[in-house]
Amino acid sequence: MKAVLLAIGDELLDGRTTDSNSVWIAGELLRLGIPVARKIICSDEIADLKAALGEACSYGQIVVSTGGLGPTEDDRTREVLAGFAGVELVHDEEAWSEIAAFYRGRSRQVPEANRRQALMPVGAERLSNPLGTAPGIALQLESGHRLFAIPGVPSEAKRMFTDQVAPRIRDLGTAMVQRTLAFAGVSESELGGRIAEFAMDGQDVRVGITANWGLIRVTARASGEGCEARMAPVLEEIRQRCAEWYLGEGRGELADFLVERLLARGEHIAFAESCTAGLACATLAQVPGVSAILESSFVTYADAAKQELLAVPQELLESEGAVSEACVRAMCEGLAARSGAELCLAISGIAGPGGGSEEKPVGLVYIGALYRGEFRCLKRRHGAIPRQQIRRRAVADSFVLGLQLSAS
Amino acid sequence: MKAVLLAIGDELLDGRTTDSNSVWIAGELLRLGIPVARKIICSDEIADLKAALGEACSYGQIVVSTGGLGPTEDDRTREVLAGFAGVELVHDEEAWSEIAAFYRGRSRQVPEANRRQALMPVGAERLSNPLGTAPGIALQLESGHRLFAIPGVPSEAKRMFTDQVAPRIRDLGTAMVQRTLAFAGVSESELGGRIAEFAMDGQDVRVGITANWGLIRVTARASGEGCEARMAPVLEEIRQRCAEWYLGEGRGELADFLVERLLARGEHIAFAESCTAGLACATLAQVPGVSAILESSFVTYADAAKQELLAVPQELLESEGAVSEACVRAMCEGLAARSGAELCLAISGIAGPGGGSEEKPVGLVYIGALYRGEFRCLKRRHGAIPRQQIRRRAVADSFVLGLQLSAS
Repeated sequence: MKAVLLAIGDELLDGRTTDSNSVWIAGELLRLGIPVARKIICSDEIADLKAALGEACSYGQIVVSTGGLGPTEDDRTREVLAGFAGVELVHDEEAWSEIAAFYRGRSRQVPEANRRQALMPVGAERLSNPLGTAPGIALQLESGHRLFAIPGVPSEAKRMFTDQVAPRIRDLGTAMVQRTLAFAGVSESELGGRIAEFAMDGQDVRVGITANWGLIRVTARASGEGCEARMAPVLEEIRQRCAEWYLGEGRGELADFLVERLLARGEHIAFAESCTAGLACATLAQVPGVSAILESSFVTYADAAKQELLAVPQELLESEGAVSEACVRAMCEGLAARSGAELCLAISGIAGPGGGSEEKPVGLVYIGALYRGEFRCLKRRHGAIPRQQIRRRAVADSFVLGLQLSAS
Repeated sequence: MKAVLLAIGDELLDGRTTDSNSVWIAGELLRLGIPVARKIICSDEIADLKAALGEACSYGQIVVSTGGLGPTEDDRTREVLAGFAGVELVHDEEAWSEIAAFYRGRSRQVPEANRRQALMPVGAERLSNPLGTAPGIALQLESGHRLFAIPGVPSEAKRMFTDQVAPRIRDLGTAMVQRTLAFAGVSESELGGRIAEFAMDGQDVRVGITANWGLIRVTARASGEGCEARMAPVLEEIRQRCAEWYLGEGRGELADFLVERLLARGEHIAFAESCTAGLACATLAQVPGVSAILESSFVTYADAAKQELLAVPQELLESEGAVSEACVRAMCEGLAARSGAELCLAISGIAGPGGGSEEKPVGLVYIGALYRGEFRCLKRRHGAIPRQQIRRRAVADSFVLGLQLSAS
C-alpha cells in the first residue's frame, strides 16, 4: 500500500510558497506504515489538476491532496475530484451548516462566496474542518483508490489529517521501521565507502546516507513482518564499522549531541566568535535546556575586542594576525579564564567576500577548542564560497571539534 | 516555453527533508520569463526516477533536476539520465580533475568513491561545481528537451543554477520585469489596505504583498513590451502612500537595510543577547562589510553574566527579573558604556518550552534599543509558539526597533 501526495496551487510553482504540508504528511504516513511513492505539485488549472490526479493514482492506492478548497474562483479541487470520480457535485446542507456556524462563532456574516465550499461529490464523505471554512473530502473510487482532499492551510491540513484521514487508513499500512544513526568527523564518501554494500539498490533493508553541515546520517528502513529484527544486525554492523565517528542514534543535529553530552557531564561551554559573530552560540542555543550549560559568550569581531575582552596579546595579533592558530588558542585561553567553562570554542576566519589576501585568502578559517586544558585546532581552506556557507561550516566544524576533543 | 522541476531523493518523501531548492529555482525561472508547469518529487529508485523523467518531459521543454549526484551508491541520477538519453556513461577526465582539485585545495586525499561523480553521459556538458564535488550535467535530447541535473545541496544548487543553467536558457523566456519595495514597522494588512486597488486580480502590473519576519515586501511584476515604463508609476504611487514605513528598493533583508544605514553614517552597533544567544548579531553579520560597524557583542544568557559583563545591578535582576524593560534598558546602557556603539540593542525573553511562569510566560520578550542616548522598548507576548520562532521574531523586532529609532 503506497500513497501519493498532491499539492495544488499556483503559489507553489512560482517561488512564492514552500510546500511544507507534504513533508509533515509524509512523515505521518510513514509512521502508519504507508510510504509515499511520489509527490506532485501542480497548478490550479483544471486540465493540469486532472492530469495530476490521474498520475497520482498510477503510483499509489491512497492519494492525499492539499489545497484548492478555498471559496474563490481559482479553487477547483472539488469539481475536478467529482469529474474524476464521474459523479455530480451537489450542495451539502450539513457542510453549509458547519460553514455558517464557523462564521457565527466569530460574530461574522457568512459570505455567499463560501457556498462553493459546501459542494460535495455524490458519494463522498465530508471531513469537518474545526479550524476553517473548507470541509475536506474523502472519496473511494471503483478502482479501490482512496482519495482525500484536505485544505492547504498548514494548521487545518494537520488537524484534518490527524483527526480524520489517519483513522480511515490506519489499517492499510504494513509494519515498517525507520532508524537513523548519526556520525561526524568524516566525509560522506569515506563513510559511504565503508558501508557501500548496504546502500546498494534493491536491499531488503534500505540504507541511505545524507550529509548536512558536518553531520552524516545513515537512515535505514525496512518493512513487513519481522522488519525490526531484520534491521537490527544491519545497523549494528554499520555502527561497528564506523565506530570512531559515531555520535548516537536519532534525528538530532550536532548541537543536540553536544548539548546532550555536556548536560550529562554537568559541564559548561563558552564561545569566542569572530567571523561567525554569534552564530555558533545561537545555533547551540536552539536546543531547549541549554541554560544549564551556557552562561556567557563573546563576539569579538574587531582585533581591539579580542584584546579587551579575551586578553589576546597585541603582539600576537600583529605578528600572527587574527586569523591564525595562535589567535584562536589565545581566544580559547582568554575565554576559559573569563568564563570558567570546561569546553571553550573559538572561531576566527575570513568569511569574505572582501578582506582576503594572498597569504590569508577568503575561506580560511581557524577553529580552536580547549577542553579541560587540552587544545586542538582545525584549519580550513574553503576557498571563495559564499560568506554564509563559510560561516555555517565554521559553526559545524566547531561542534565536531568540540565533540571529538571531549569524546575521550 | 515551460519548465518542470524534478527533486530526487528518498529523504524528500519520508518527512525528513523539505524541498526548498525548487521554490528558489521556480522564482529564478520566472524572472527569466519561464514559468514552471509542474514539480515532481521522486525517490532514488532507478525505475521511479526514469518514470519521473518521462513525465517531466511531457509537461515542459526544460527539465531541471536536483539531487542524486552524490558519491554514494544511492545516488543514481547520472546513470538514469544517460539511460533516458540512450547514451553511455563514461569517465570524464576533466570532471575528475576538478574533483581532485577540490580535495587538494582542502589538503585532503580524494576518496575513490568520488570517481562515480566523474561519470558523464556521452554528449553531455559538464557543469562545474565550485562549492562541492558533484559536477552538474546539461543534456539536450533529440526531442529538443533541455535537461539539467544539478546537486541537491542548496548552496551548490543555487550557485550552479545562477552561473551555469540560467545563462544557457536566458534567451528562451519572454520579456518580464519584477521589482520589490521593502517596508517595516507596519502590519501586512495595514499596508495592504493603503494600496488595495493595486493588488486586485487582473491588473496589468501584478502587485503582491508578502510579510516575512517583520519585513513587508511589495513585489510588482509586468511582462511584455514596455513593461518597465508601465510599472514605474505604480511603484512610485505605492512608495509615496507608504512613505513612513519605507526602507528601500530591492530584495534585501532587514539586516541589509540596517547595515546600509549605519555604514552611511559611520556609526557602530553592538548587541547584548539573552534568549537569542547571539542570533541577532550573527544575522546582522550575514551582511558583507559589517566589520566597519561591528566590533564586539555579548551573549549574557545567565543573570551572573548580565551583572559581570554589562553591569546590570543585582537588585534590579532580583526585583524586576531578567525579562523586563528595566533589564533590557540596563543591558543597553551597560553595552553602550562598554562598547561605545551609537546603536545598542538588547534582547531578553523566555523562549521556552520550559522556564515560563504565570507572570512571565513562554513567549514574553523585551527588546531594548538605545540610540545616541534615546531609549525605546518593545514588549512582545508571542505565546507558547516554538522556541526558534520566538527567537527569530525577537531578532527581527530588534532590527525594526533599531531602524525606527535611528530613522530621525
